Amino acid sequence: MPAEATIRVRYAETDTMGIVYYANYLIYMEVARVEYLRQRGCPMAEVDRKIHMPVVDASCHYVKPARLDDLLRVRAHVSKRKRASFTFSYEITHAETGELIATGETRHACWDPESQKMIAIPDWLKHVMSEDVPDAV
Amino acid sequence: MPAEATIRVRYAETDTMGIVYYANYLIYMEVARVEYLRQRGCPMAEVDRKIHMPVVDASCHYVKPARLDDLLRVRAHVSKRKRASFTFSYEITHAETGELIATGETRHACWDPESQKMIAIPDWLKHVMSEDVPDAV
Amino acid sequence: MPAEATIRVRYAETDTMGIVYYANYLIYMEVARVEYLRQRGCPMAEVDRKIHMPVVDASCHYVKPARLDDLLRVRAHVSKRKRASFTFSYEITHAETGELIATGETRHACWDPESQKMIAIPDWLKHVMSEDVPDAV
Amino acid sequence: MPAEATIRVRYAETDTMGIVYYANYLIYMEVARVEYLRQRGCPMAEVDRKIHMPVVDASCHYVKPARLDDLLRVRAHVSKRKRASFTFSYEITHAETGELIATGETRHACWDPESQKMIAIPDWLKHVMSEDVPDAV
Repeated sequence: MPAEATIRVRYAETDTMGIVYYANYLIYMEVARVEYLRQRGCPMAEVDRKIHMPVVDASCHYVKPARLDDLLRVRAHVSKRKRASFTFSYEITHAETGELIATGETRHACWDPESQKMIAIPDWLKHVMSEDVPDAV
Repeated sequence: MPAEATIRVRYAETDTMGIVYYANYLIYMEVARVEYLRQRGCPMAEVDRKIHMPVVDASCHYVKPARLDDLLRVRAHVSKRKRASFTFSYEITHAETGELIATGETRHACWDPESQKMIAIPDWLKHVMSEDVPDAV
Repeated sequence: MPAEATIRVRYAETDTMGIVYYANYLIYMEVARVEYLRQRGCPMAEVDRKIHMPVVDASCHYVKPARLDDLLRVRAHVSKRKRASFTFSYEITHAETGELIATGETRHACWDPESQKMIAIPDWLKHVMSEDVPDAV
Repeated sequence: MPAEATIRVRYAETDTMGIVYYANYLIYMEVARVEYLRQRGCPMAEVDRKIHMPVVDASCHYVKPARLDDLLRVRAHVSKRKRASFTFSYEITHAETGELIATGETRHACWDPESQKMIAIPDWLKHVMSEDVPDAV
């Protein structure tokens, strides 16, 4: 089940074209990603002490521009899981009209701040994602 | 020939992980893209009056984190051209060590602010890109 | 009565010092300022068509750093009104502990997009602020 | 003698009003502040290991809006020094026309990352600023 964040477009996020600047959709995705973890008992400030999840790949497909003060709905879920990386998929829609604004993906690795090394996805994190990407698959 | 921008990483662009926040690489790409056009006689403020080039797709592959005060070199060139869209490819390296930091791509459409419609790439813009993507191809 | 916005600190808003980057408090202030107007029947997208309110002066006093994922409460109210400018005052506190994070002020002028000129505060806008800064004062 | 940074306004820094978003001037100030230290032999990445200089107060006075692709000149110098805090003053002008865009100030405290305490300005840092704020004053 995707997590959902509701985001109001801020002035600082628009640009001189009158629309949301393209890099800011990656910020919106992150907000929903953090929300996903929070809803599963993993507030980010705690997660960061145990594991870092650097983004290895990010992509965004822009469908329709969002504008100042628009209320956006950002849905995030884990769409893929490998041994040492996992992928979040996102869907950004206009909260009132339902129109699709953008879709995106981020692939993350797991980095252990203690050993300062890349590691396989730890079991507790697999468990967090298990609803989306069951172990058997 | 790629255009090149040299960018010093600012505090505001780092995050609490001690590295450049992932969305900011899309800003760096844009700086090099604007530089590409400027070097070919098309300063952005002028271009914007004639045509808008909304990003349709963006992607970034993160290889090595950049940090506060790092000096980055961002290279941009047009790697693909279709009738109504074109693609910029980017390479971000550490300016001093030459290490690869990230690569990326942005695909753009052409929107005419006068008719308020999507249009094919106008001839003057094709000409700007002709060194990278010759007409015959 | 101040308007109140609740803001969750995002990754992008922190810096390599592990705290919220100082310029971002001005973004938080703006979110509360926009909320103030919305709660008084003036959604920003509508306001912008009638009048622009460029910031003439901004200041922020930083008391205690906010960190990733902190939930902040930002209160905004109009604290001063002159013929052609008005001042918003802000208080940013930690939403859970109540600790004071920062205070700030922004002074705004009124610019008419139609005549492209600075103007006195229009009556409808005075009315919006009348609870905070009564006309008699 | 003030340090000087030359900054080209980026898309991401403009907003839907067609001008640079007000919080971003604080980023420009920081760029010049870091440049000031670099020119005096203190690259930021090194400074951060020895001392943190959290902003206690920041203010900006906006004179004339900057726009996309404008080339700005940001001058920074230390204008005041007390036992445990110091103040940078900034002047932002249009690099080509010389027009004044904004002025600003930031007051900084000194925080020792080792003892995790606020401290007086260390002697090496006083020395760095001695040209602007001589000891005798």
